[in-house]
Amino acid sequence: MEKIRLGMVGGGDDAFIGAVHRMAARLDDRFELVAGALSSTPERALASGLALGLDEKRIYPDFTAMAKREAALKDGIEAVAIVTPNNMHAPVVREFMKRGIHAICDKPLTATLAEAKTLATQIEGYDALFVLTYNYTGYPMMMHARQMVDDGILGGVRLVQVEYAQDWLTEAAGAESKQGAWRTDPKQSGVGGSTGDIGTHAHNLACYVTGLRVESLAADLQSFVPGRALDDNAHVLLRFEGGARGMLWCSQVAVGNENRLTLRVYGDKGGISWSQEDPNVLWFTPFGQPTQRLTRGGPSGGTQGIRVPAGHPEGYLEGFANIYQAAADAIIASRGDKNSETLFPTLFPTLLDGLEGMKFVDACVRSSAKNAIWIDL
Amino acid sequence: MEKIRLGMVGGGDDAFIGAVHRMAARLDDRFELVAGALSSTPERALASGLALGLDEKRIYPDFTAMAKREAALKDGIEAVAIVTPNNMHAPVVREFMKRGIHAICDKPLTATLAEAKTLATQIEGYDALFVLTYNYTGYPMMMHARQMVDDGILGGVRLVQVEYAQDWLTEAAGAESKQGAWRTDPKQSGVGGSTGDIGTHAHNLACYVTGLRVESLAADLQSFVPGRALDDNAHVLLRFEGGARGMLWCSQVAVGNENRLTLRVYGDKGGISWSQEDPNVLWFTPFGQPTQRLTRGGPSGGTQGIRVPAGHPEGYLEGFANIYQAAADAIIASRGDKNSETLFPTLFPTLLDGLEGMKFVDACVRSSAKNAIWIDL
Amino acid sequence: MEKIRLGMVGGGDDAFIGAVHRMAARLDDRFELVAGALSSTPERALASGLALGLDEKRIYPDFTAMAKREAALKDGIEAVAIVTPNNMHAPVVREFMKRGIHAICDKPLTATLAEAKTLATQIEGYDALFVLTYNYTGYPMMMHARQMVDDGILGGVRLVQVEYAQDWLTEAAGAESKQGAWRTDPKQSGVGGSTGDIGTHAHNLACYVTGLRVESLAADLQSFVPGRALDDNAHVLLRFEGGARGMLWCSQVAVGNENRLTLRVYGDKGGISWSQEDPNVLWFTPFGQPTQRLTRGGPSGGTQGIRVPAGHPEGYLEGFANIYQAAADAIIASRGDKNSETLFPTLFPTLLDGLEGMKFVDACVRSSAKNAIWIDL
Amino acid sequence: MEKIRLGMVGGGDDAFIGAVHRMAARLDDRFELVAGALSSTPERALASGLALGLDEKRIYPDFTAMAKREAALKDGIEAVAIVTPNNMHAPVVREFMKRGIHAICDKPLTATLAEAKTLATQIEGYDALFVLTYNYTGYPMMMHARQMVDDGILGGVRLVQVEYAQDWLTEAAGAESKQGAWRTDPKQSGVGGSTGDIGTHAHNLACYVTGLRVESLAADLQSFVPGRALDDNAHVLLRFEGGARGMLWCSQVAVGNENRLTLRVYGDKGGISWSQEDPNVLWFTPFGQPTQRLTRGGPSGGTQGIRVPAGHPEGYLEGFANIYQAAADAIIASRGDKNSETLFPTLFPTLLDGLEGMKFVDACVRSSAKNAIWIDL
Repeated sequence: MEKIRLGMVGGGDDAFIGAVHRMAARLDDRFELVAGALSSTPERALASGLALGLDEKRIYPDFTAMAKREAALKDGIEAVAIVTPNNMHAPVVREFMKRGIHAICDKPLTATLAEAKTLATQIEGYDALFVLTYNYTGYPMMMHARQMVDDGILGGVRLVQVEYAQDWLTEAAGAESKQGAWRTDPKQSGVGGSTGDIGTHAHNLACYVTGLRVESLAADLQSFVPGRALDDNAHVLLRFEGGARGMLWCSQVAVGNENRLTLRVYGDKGGISWSQEDPNVLWFTPFGQPTQRLTRGGPSGGTQGIRVPAGHPEGYLEGFANIYQAAADAIIASRGDKNSETLFPTLFPTLLDGLEGMKFVDACVRSSAKNAIWIDL
Repeated sequence: MEKIRLGMVGGGDDAFIGAVHRMAARLDDRFELVAGALSSTPERALASGLALGLDEKRIYPDFTAMAKREAALKDGIEAVAIVTPNNMHAPVVREFMKRGIHAICDKPLTATLAEAKTLATQIEGYDALFVLTYNYTGYPMMMHARQMVDDGILGGVRLVQVEYAQDWLTEAAGAESKQGAWRTDPKQSGVGGSTGDIGTHAHNLACYVTGLRVESLAADLQSFVPGRALDDNAHVLLRFEGGARGMLWCSQVAVGNENRLTLRVYGDKGGISWSQEDPNVLWFTPFGQPTQRLTRGGPSGGTQGIRVPAGHPEGYLEGFANIYQAAADAIIASRGDKNSETLFPTLFPTLLDGLEGMKFVDACVRSSAKNAIWIDL
Repeated sequence: MEKIRLGMVGGGDDAFIGAVHRMAARLDDRFELVAGALSSTPERALASGLALGLDEKRIYPDFTAMAKREAALKDGIEAVAIVTPNNMHAPVVREFMKRGIHAICDKPLTATLAEAKTLATQIEGYDALFVLTYNYTGYPMMMHARQMVDDGILGGVRLVQVEYAQDWLTEAAGAESKQGAWRTDPKQSGVGGSTGDIGTHAHNLACYVTGLRVESLAADLQSFVPGRALDDNAHVLLRFEGGARGMLWCSQVAVGNENRLTLRVYGDKGGISWSQEDPNVLWFTPFGQPTQRLTRGGPSGGTQGIRVPAGHPEGYLEGFANIYQAAADAIIASRGDKNSETLFPTLFPTLLDGLEGMKFVDACVRSSAKNAIWIDL
Repeated sequence: MEKIRLGMVGGGDDAFIGAVHRMAARLDDRFELVAGALSSTPERALASGLALGLDEKRIYPDFTAMAKREAALKDGIEAVAIVTPNNMHAPVVREFMKRGIHAICDKPLTATLAEAKTLATQIEGYDALFVLTYNYTGYPMMMHARQMVDDGILGGVRLVQVEYAQDWLTEAAGAESKQGAWRTDPKQSGVGGSTGDIGTHAHNLACYVTGLRVESLAADLQSFVPGRALDDNAHVLLRFEGGARGMLWCSQVAVGNENRLTLRVYGDKGGISWSQEDPNVLWFTPFGQPTQRLTRGGPSGGTQGIRVPAGHPEGYLEGFANIYQAAADAIIASRGDKNSETLFPTLFPTLLDGLEGMKFVDACVRSSAKNAIWIDL
């Protein structure tokens, strides 16, 4: 099976998420990075591309040039990984997808809901796949949790408690912090601060595992750090279709939390609890019985998306790589290859998930602006 | 020092909380139970009193008779523990306090806010102490957390996340369950179900540790079990005086949770996290430094309210007994004894705390009835 | 039911374990402390007795005087709690038991194995009970674990890993540390340091839960702190009757451990794991199935020795009190009362357990002196 | 920088450790797998090579043919990963190293100590590197722990408690279990069962972190499963150079343990504790201060060997890949490239570590055969 030829837009130098995408794509050996427009600064784009061992001819100073030339090449890229700031997702996605190149785009979908809706309309007719890297759904125990809910093991879902707590924005980000700078800048990030950056992950994970949509929400957003333009904390009440209720808390000023995404789901027959910082374990309580410690690959612990046996912890990169695995399955299938085999029947996050995420952010911002009234999604 | 002569109203037979009060009163040897009206059924009152070794003359068929006679005795009770259903708190409190007998009353204060306000007015002039057993504030690590906040170790408080999750009402309580029966009956419990029973504990603990009042809240209450008259789950957004924000979740249908009261407080300099089911540990993170595991009696772990050294776990009864210790200090002091020594400078929960609790329940119910609008307390 | 009249030898002033015995005896209201020889210094004995509210006539300057007079009183003590240093256990036990007064004695049994053997012979014919407070067997989850092993739930026991780690003797104890002083003094403590003080607890707990005797052991003892006469660390290999093998580690110089007694038992059908610092939880894995979190009073978590429901943590004092409960059962039964009811069918630790403990210490010391050769117990 | 051309011997089809080596080599993009003798069965070797996308000409039916041809190729492999059963390590290592091809060999070094010594002598003069994949030393928190010990943060090391517990051999392995079959077969595994397979990891990790050698040991080995030829459990007392003492427990019949490698080290100034199943956390207690939770990449948590920020868990594959990173550093350096940069100053495990491991296994077996007498290493 020939490897999928992959390009990348953004992700130059020491960008965190670009390197993550590359490791995720490489882990299972189904992608080969062959082209890139890795920075909006041409010199950095060139240096970064060389450092990655790219052929100099396929290192581009801007993404449009890259899309045009790669689409024309016989062995041009089949897919592009987009790891730019939020406001630069939509333009890049369009440029590649309209030329039939699959897009693997970082989250959130766009900077604003309006942009997202426009993008959705535009790309509808394009003959290419769109994959959104809501990577936390790639953790095996989250796939397993989704399956448990789907199998009715928890009974009817009543409660969804989801949190995503960090502390890295507890104080005003210094100018030197590239990560902090664009994430707290409305022009690049969009209308949501913590809601857009991590709230969308929490929202997506809750929906992914329960299979339920949020129908309406009431949100109380704060910017605790003086002078910060975007929210750095959000408290959100959730009402799901079918009657389940929930809470979502996301914060980037919760001191002592590194990347603490947690999900708890309670039905009338059972409950589950999971934490991203201990991702190989899913706690499961069948009502009236002892709580069970389900482990990735262990007894009753699921088998999907697993590379090494129980007790050999897999982490963030492996979960991320599972999204790439699902994307690879779909890309290979789209080649029309006869002998392709779908490893990941649970498909990757799609444009629809991205739109839901933007609706979530938009609803949070509007609800909070009106003193936390309920807003339908 | 002569022991404090104690009576009890309610708590007959196998009542859970009555036995707890007796053990808590006994642990430190400062109270002696000498009288009781332990049941509203005279035969059960008698049998229960005899089982406890009470003098038959001081076993009463009703609390009014008990209050009258004990007040007249030369060695009558100095204090009464009240462990009746919520609707029977106010009448009993009045009957004893008006005769100068101190009241140690279980929570919540009353069944309704109106009752609570009336009670507050009535007992104002009585020459007796009122102690409310919000027992979770008696845990040493909670005393220590309060001290840490007060000392400014967390900086300005920004966030308060408090939860109290149980699962024992996941299904409709059978008629045989005495605990479930009165707690889900509005006549005996009052307007709040989970909010009154456990939400008040969560609310009180959050206020106790932070030293902040809740100014307003928005609540979404549910009765997930068909036919249940009172809420069995509540999601509440909180706004504290001074700008802190928070969330309170209480539930009696969260499968897998036994008695999981947890509190997290985040300031601009540090954060803390605590769980009642692991009460001897308080997690503390000074911003930018490693998280520390503070232990009861261990290094930097506080010394107040401790009976045995670090590593020898204390639990629910010891925490409860600390409320009785504080009450004993105050009662001894009220005797006018010269050599009394106050062990617990952090005073016991008072009528004011009880009133705040009833305001909390009342506000939750009213907010939820109006689709989670904000209600001032 | 009349309370059991209790005396105490040792435990004056701020002695740790004396106060523990008194709280444990008081918790369930079946004992009443009425006499004491609380210190070998008469003035301290008097002051301590008065502080505890004892009748001055029943405060004794020495234990022999106490034994004689109490035995002669019509309402003299029925039982005596002995909380002296190890070398003063045997003489006190004898003095009371030979007069028909039950002895409740702190561990280890004596300072040396020879003393223990002599004591065993002497008290054989006395008409009184001997109770040894190996208190960790009083934890409900340990009672439950024992029952599980006995019921064959783990299958045949293969492995026993037991540890008792502390760090309070990491540095040379200052003269001011009363606890440290006598525990590191061979004259008062006996031949074992950490082995006697905490190794005996670990050894006893392992035997209690598995129902197996240690047949032989090989031990490597150390005194890491310069100048310390007794061991402060011991590494011991264990061979149990029936073929099970194990390891015992006890240490008082393991920095970061407060009172970390842990037990793991593995059979051919299942395994369990427990830690004294988290005593309400027992981890149980049936082979090939997920690990279960059994909780005190929770589903499949046992019911014996429990005072408050699941989720309301009980601790060290409650476990200790369970030994007193078992002792009370036996003492009441020995009164010949018709209506006594045995609450604790699992009997309290006995002289035999104490002898085994002394054999353990003695074997450790002898094995280590001969370069860790195997010694039969 | 040109990628390192890598070959592999063993690791065909669904072999566990072969796939792990390939993922580890791929993660950081410094190796490229270009040749293989992936099975001793030629058909399986071919099929496995094709499945991995190898050029058919570089898929070899046996390792000798591979070594000869690759050494002769202009762009032949620079390094070979050896993932055969233990008895097939030495012959393969020799065949490649004598031709100047670097060997990256799975552990343990060989099947017997004699083999190991012979190998050591033979390869001494070869101009190639030997790397042993004791992968657990590749975890960032273990690198950090080693640094802490080296920096004197724990003071003088007194105690080393190391354990490696699994349960997958609790019952006799069915014939279908390829993993179980060769690991319990003395011909392929060598003299040690659990001691060789996992005990060597535990021994190596303890030595790596403390920087100390084991001087002597006393071991009690068992084969609990009837008919099993090799040990499935080992209890070992350790004496380190300089006076530190320790215990090592390894077991493959400890029900409920998946891959529970844990290490605790105690010095006179501090203690640390770590578990492989929660590898991103290192618990550290400075004596007399609260225990700290150090996290990979977090405050005071070390920075070496890290790919993603704190809170984004890395696991087994990332740790394994760190060994490959260190190997890559050395291989690149051996090319004489001017601009090579050493990322991993903490060098990879070497032949010497492998020899120590074989001495450990050999000493365990001999000690146990003589009733756990002390054996010098």
